[in-house]
Amino acid sequence: MKINGTPYRSVWLDADGHSIRIFDQTKLPWAVEELVLSDEEAVAHAIRSMQVRGAPLIGAVGAYGLAMALRRDPSIENLERMAAMLNETRPTAVNLKWALDRICAAVRNHPPERRADAAYAEASAICDDDVETNRKIGEHGLELLKEIAARKKAEGREGEPVRVLTHCNAGWIATVDYGTALSPIYQAHDAGMDVHVWVDETRPRNQGALTAWELGSHGVPHTFVTDNAGGHLMQHGLVDIVIVGTDRVTRNGDVANKIGTYLKALAAKDNDIPFWVALPHSTLDMSVRDGLAEIPIEERSAAEVTATTGLLPEGGVGAIRVAPESSRAANPAFDVTPARLVTGLITERGRCEASEEGLAALYPERV
Amino acid sequence: MKINGTPYRSVWLDADGHSIRIFDQTKLPWAVEELVLSDEEAVAHAIRSMQVRGAPLIGAVGAYGLAMALRRDPSIENLERMAAMLNETRPTAVNLKWALDRICAAVRNHPPERRADAAYAEASAICDDDVETNRKIGEHGLELLKEIAARKKAEGREGEPVRVLTHCNAGWIATVDYGTALSPIYQAHDAGMDVHVWVDETRPRNQGALTAWELGSHGVPHTFVTDNAGGHLMQHGLVDIVIVGTDRVTRNGDVANKIGTYLKALAAKDNDIPFWVALPHSTLDMSVRDGLAEIPIEERSAAEVTATTGLLPEGGVGAIRVAPESSRAANPAFDVTPARLVTGLITERGRCEASEEGLAALYPERV
Repeated sequence: MKINGTPYRSVWLDADGHSIRIFDQTKLPWAVEELVLSDEEAVAHAIRSMQVRGAPLIGAVGAYGLAMALRRDPSIENLERMAAMLNETRPTAVNLKWALDRICAAVRNHPPERRADAAYAEASAICDDDVETNRKIGEHGLELLKEIAARKKAEGREGEPVRVLTHCNAGWIATVDYGTALSPIYQAHDAGMDVHVWVDETRPRNQGALTAWELGSHGVPHTFVTDNAGGHLMQHGLVDIVIVGTDRVTRNGDVANKIGTYLKALAAKDNDIPFWVALPHSTLDMSVRDGLAEIPIEERSAAEVTATTGLLPEGGVGAIRVAPESSRAANPAFDVTPARLVTGLITERGRCEASEEGLAALYPERV
Repeated sequence: MKINGTPYRSVWLDADGHSIRIFDQTKLPWAVEELVLSDEEAVAHAIRSMQVRGAPLIGAVGAYGLAMALRRDPSIENLERMAAMLNETRPTAVNLKWALDRICAAVRNHPPERRADAAYAEASAICDDDVETNRKIGEHGLELLKEIAARKKAEGREGEPVRVLTHCNAGWIATVDYGTALSPIYQAHDAGMDVHVWVDETRPRNQGALTAWELGSHGVPHTFVTDNAGGHLMQHGLVDIVIVGTDRVTRNGDVANKIGTYLKALAAKDNDIPFWVALPHSTLDMSVRDGLAEIPIEERSAAEVTATTGLLPEGGVGAIRVAPESSRAANPAFDVTPARLVTGLITERGRCEASEEGLAALYPERV
C-alpha cells in the first residue's frame, strides 16, 4: 500500500541483501521511521517490543530473522536454537511458528554453505505468499460487503454506507501488504462502494490509531471510538458487519485475537450482526481444538495499561499515568472468541463456517 | 470517606454558608484540589466539565446550584429557568432532575424571601439522604458478597477472595459519601472479608483511576485492567460478580450506565456470572419503560477520545493524541443494558429483580 503516494510493503530486504527494513510501529502513525534489522537479536527485540506486530507480519519478519541467524552460523543446532528463541518472542500468534517451521524445512536438506541463501529465498517466498493471500482474502471479503450493499439497496437504504466495525489493526502494516480484515474494505473502497469503518481504539496499545491512519491514508471514511462504544453502536443499528483479524484459529474454529474481541463478538450475536474473521492459512492451528483451554494468552507488561505513552503534540515523547502508583494492573493481550459466536471465516480460498467441517472443506490437506 | 486519614464528603457547604466545596474530579486522583462554587453558573460548568460527576453527586451539587440561583433572584420564573438550565448540563442521569424537582417542590410555597433558605435546607437534606441511602445499599450488597463467600467456602475455595468487577466509578466521590457499587465492597472489606476488585479503566475519561484511587486509599486489594479485559477474565473464572452503578433505571429495569457497561453485562451472562446494579431511589425513572428507545444518551466531545489528557510524571498537564488528526471520533458517554441481562438491583430498601414487578414490590409508592 502507499505512504504519501509511494508504494511500500511492511517489510523488505535492505540494499545490503541481508538486513531488512521495517516501519517502527511503536512510532506509527505519529512518525514514519524506517528501522534496519540486521541480526536475529534485533529481530527478536523488534517483535517483543512491537516495533513489528500483526500475526502475519511477525511471521514474515521472524523468517528473515532465522535467515540472519544462519548467515552467522548455518549449523542445524543453531537453526533449532534460534528458531526456538524467535518463537518465544510472542506466544499467541501461530504464524510465527508456521514461518519458522517453513524456514527450517526449506534449509534442513541443504549443505551448510547454502542454508542461509535458501532461508532468505524462503523468507522472500513467505512474503510474496502473504501478499497474494491477503489480496485474495480481500476478494472473498468483498463479496460479503457486496451482499450487504445489495440487501441495503433492496431495503431502500442505498443512501447508507456499508458500516464495518473492526478491532485492533489487521491492515496492511499488520501483514506484508493489503492486510486481512482491512483487505476487503480497501477493495470495496477501490471498487467505489460507500463503506464506513468504526475503528476501535484497542487499549492498551491503541492499535486503532494504526487502523485510522491506514484508512485515512487510503481515503476510507472512518470514525474512531473507544473500545466501550461498539455494543451501543450495534444496539442502535449503526453496524452492518464486524470484521476482525486473528492470531490463531483452532481446528474447532475458535478465534484468538486482540483482547476485547470476544466482547464485540458477544454484542454482534446479541444484535444479529454478522461477525467475520479474516485469516490467511498461516493462522490456522489444526493441532489444537479448544481455544480457551489450549491457546497460550500472552500477558504483557502492566506498564502498558497504567501509563499511556506516545508522541506529544510538540513531537516529544511523553507518558501519562493512567492508574495510581499503588494499583497493580493485569494486561492479557488476547482473548478467545468461541466458534459459536463467529459467523464465518474469510480465507484466501473463500469463506467457510468456523468449524472443523468448514475448515476441512477449504483445507482438506490440513485435516 | 477519608483522604489521608481525614473524613470528607464529596460536596459540603463552605464557611460562607452559601458556597459549596467539591474536589475537582478532572484533577483527581493525581491532585486533590478543592474548588469553591459560588453561583449557579459555576455549578453548571462544574457539572458539564465533569469537575463533579457521578449521578448522585451531580444531583446534590445541582440542588445547591439552584439554591444559589434563588439567593440572587428568588422569583418562581428564575427558579424554573435556572432549574431548566441546570437540568440541561448533562442529559442521561436522572438524579439531577430528581434533585432539582425536589428543590422546586420545597421552595414553591414559601414567600420569596424565604425560598433561598428553604432551598439550602433541602439541598442539605438531599445530601444527608444520599449518605444514608448509600450506607444501606452497602448493607444490602454486603449480603450478596457474603453469599458468594459462603458458596466458595462450601466448595472448598475459601482461600480465594470474592472477586468483583466494576466499570466506571460508582464510589464515594460519585456520590455524597459511601458510593453505590463500591459501598458493599467497603463494608465487606471493613467486615474483614477477603475481597478483590477488577477495576475497568473506563475510557475515554478513565474513571477507573478514580476507583483505583478510592480502593487504594481504603486498603481494598484491586487490579486495574483495560475495558477490553473483562470478558477474558470472566471466561477464565476470575470474576465472581459484577457490580456497577447507574445513571438511570427505567420502570422495566433497563439500566443506563457508562459506555461499555452493556458489553460487561453480555460477558457476565455468557459466563453465568451475576450482574448487579446498585442504585439509590433517586436513580429510578418510572416515567420511561424502554431504556434503549427512551433514555437520552449524552454525546460528548470527540477530543475526549482522540486525546488523552492528564498530569505528566513531572506534574505538568499534557495531552497525548490517540487518533490521527484526519480521523473523526464519536463519543457516546453511556449505553443501556437491557433488563434481561441484569441479575438484580441493589437499592437502599433491599434487592429486587430488574423488572416492573421487582421495583413495584420495593417502591409501591412510585408505581
